Amino acid sequence: MPTDPVALTQELIRCPSVTPEEGGAITLLAARLEDAGFTCTRVDRNGIANLFARWGNNGNGPAFGFNGHTDVVPIGNPADWTHDPFGAVIVGDTLYGRGACDMKSGVAAFVAAAIDFVAETPPDGSIVITITGDEEGDGVDGTDAILDWMEANGERMDACLVGEPTCPDVMGDMIKIGRRGSMTAYITATGQQGHAAYPHRARNPLPVLVKFLDRIASHQLDDGTAHFDASTLAIASIDVGNPANNVIPAQGTAMANIRFNDAHTSQMLITWLEQTAQQVSAGTDVEIAMTYKVSGESFITPPGALSDLISMAVEAETGRVPEMSTTGGTSDARFVKRHCPVVECGLVGQSMHQVDEHVSVSDIHTLKAIYTRVLRGYFAA
Amino acid sequence: MPTDPVALTQELIRCPSVTPEEGGAITLLAARLEDAGFTCTRVDRNGIANLFARWGNNGNGPAFGFNGHTDVVPIGNPADWTHDPFGAVIVGDTLYGRGACDMKSGVAAFVAAAIDFVAETPPDGSIVITITGDEEGDGVDGTDAILDWMEANGERMDACLVGEPTCPDVMGDMIKIGRRGSMTAYITATGQQGHAAYPHRARNPLPVLVKFLDRIASHQLDDGTAHFDASTLAIASIDVGNPANNVIPAQGTAMANIRFNDAHTSQMLITWLEQTAQQVSAGTDVEIAMTYKVSGESFITPPGALSDLISMAVEAETGRVPEMSTTGGTSDARFVKRHCPVVECGLVGQSMHQVDEHVSVSDIHTLKAIYTRVLRGYFAA
Repeated sequence: MPTDPVALTQELIRCPSVTPEEGGAITLLAARLEDAGFTCTRVDRNGIANLFARWGNNGNGPAFGFNGHTDVVPIGNPADWTHDPFGAVIVGDTLYGRGACDMKSGVAAFVAAAIDFVAETPPDGSIVITITGDEEGDGVDGTDAILDWMEANGERMDACLVGEPTCPDVMGDMIKIGRRGSMTAYITATGQQGHAAYPHRARNPLPVLVKFLDRIASHQLDDGTAHFDASTLAIASIDVGNPANNVIPAQGTAMANIRFNDAHTSQMLITWLEQTAQQVSAGTDVEIAMTYKVSGESFITPPGALSDLISMAVEAETGRVPEMSTTGGTSDARFVKRHCPVVECGLVGQSMHQVDEHVSVSDIHTLKAIYTRVLRGYFAA
Repeated sequence: MPTDPVALTQELIRCPSVTPEEGGAITLLAARLEDAGFTCTRVDRNGIANLFARWGNNGNGPAFGFNGHTDVVPIGNPADWTHDPFGAVIVGDTLYGRGACDMKSGVAAFVAAAIDFVAETPPDGSIVITITGDEEGDGVDGTDAILDWMEANGERMDACLVGEPTCPDVMGDMIKIGRRGSMTAYITATGQQGHAAYPHRARNPLPVLVKFLDRIASHQLDDGTAHFDASTLAIASIDVGNPANNVIPAQGTAMANIRFNDAHTSQMLITWLEQTAQQVSAGTDVEIAMTYKVSGESFITPPGALSDLISMAVEAETGRVPEMSTTGGTSDARFVKRHCPVVECGLVGQSMHQVDEHVSVSDIHTLKAIYTRVLRGYFAA
């Protein structure tokens, strides 16, 4: 009996694996893969659960990889959800829950495809599955940790498919051959506390902070490049925590996330932010200080054998020739890129990170069929 | 023997009357005033203790009023105090304690002055003393409640002196003939949550919020008026509470406090804020909604008989001609204004609301002398 990727998605959604919690999700997958003949190794690092699973020996035959994550972003206000975010309720063709599209369904689809494929047509090679519990968080101890362990232990993939949701509108309309870079600036504006009735005796950092944020949020970073859309900047949070309307606070903080194409490096953007902060704060007695976290520089796997193989599988199952895109956020493909060619192919991502995150049940079945075709094509070549 | 205003201040400080607690302070004052021939009426409202005291009949003669409060702000961390905040310790010329300057000393000075004045030179008129236990709190059931009761019972003052601390640096350097208005806008910007990598699928409220805040914080409300400094706007807080750098939040909030002069009313400012919000949010799919708390409109008692009388008393006792100012925060004079002309005159306020709040012992004696001169001048006229 074929492995049902929808039931497996539901089981995974019911694991409350909000980053960095494992929530039972990786344990569940390891058990399934072990049952199907995969050799599973937990390669946890600094409390993050990670799974390396290989079917077949690690010899000279080709090794195809799948990569994904089981961790999910927080649910926000539970009252905003129509259905229990960890309930995995199905209404008609729609499955609801945190991680429904990003990306427990994608993980379930490739795990189900791989289990059935090795049972029905054992390939002359290896299938490697790498799953992390830290993609939505810092990602420091996630896929990168698995790749470190693989290199230390002589394990390899010759090509890798990351099962992140990649379709903006309908199933099959897009795969990703590269990604923009991503970095976050953590901003602190510091002045001096005082009474709101005597502003001349205080130095309010907030007018300077909002001017700086307005300046960087209004700035057009570029107009896009050959393989990439325009870069974007999102103010993610601003926090002061002052409860008293008659008090001028001493400090305010903010967080800005930049998704950038190959027109920039993170270092160029840091220089721009620092110069803008200096311009805005000049003569104000307010200091703007920033620290940065660079999640990844932009990268690309140029169109070729791997992207063609995946594109043909998508077309065969959906009737659509997917666009080869570099849009969207960062993903663990930025780590895999150091190891082997990597392409991302998955579901429709419209509701990811939103309340009432959901996915089409029939799309999950289609995705499993696409992955099966990819495996068949890869090992037939 | 004259009534000692310093001993009375100490007795009041030893009453732990942190708003809204009466702490024994009003009961103590009522007893002293009764002993001196005042008719005392407790006009408590909603659990707040208030005192109305009148010497003389309520006939055709002139009625001079004093207003003050016995409640104090919390002490904060007791360990930060050098002396017991409710101990009323005197070291040299300095009296320490919560309420030492704001404003148990002021109350003690005018109660002592009034008691001695009516005993020595009974005036042909009335002295009205109104004291509340709710000035540091919302003020809803404080002085306003006393004025409501006075109007309902045909009681009146023809002029009123509020004994709040008014001097910024040295005794006698300032009296207050009006106050700026104060209002707070509570701002909520609402968009739609989403992934920071796909900003076109979310509606980030924060760029609109910071543009709005920059706009209102950069705007010069006015350049000051005849009797007032320029109005000011202070952004007091901005809060989002989004911990995830890859999530675009659905909502952000902010708080802006405006201290405004007689070029504005709160309603004019609300109209300006609403229009600015509409301009900034137009075409953005982000909604800015605001609620408002108006603590008081601006008011002024134009320089004239009352302020001249008080100014001359200050000059006679201190050698300084006080500045007639409208600076600083709000006070209960904003309520008294509806009833009769009102001027504020009191001690040096530097340590008000701070730890180790303190006052000069000799300044308390000087203040009693000033108040005595005011009474003598008023009833001589």
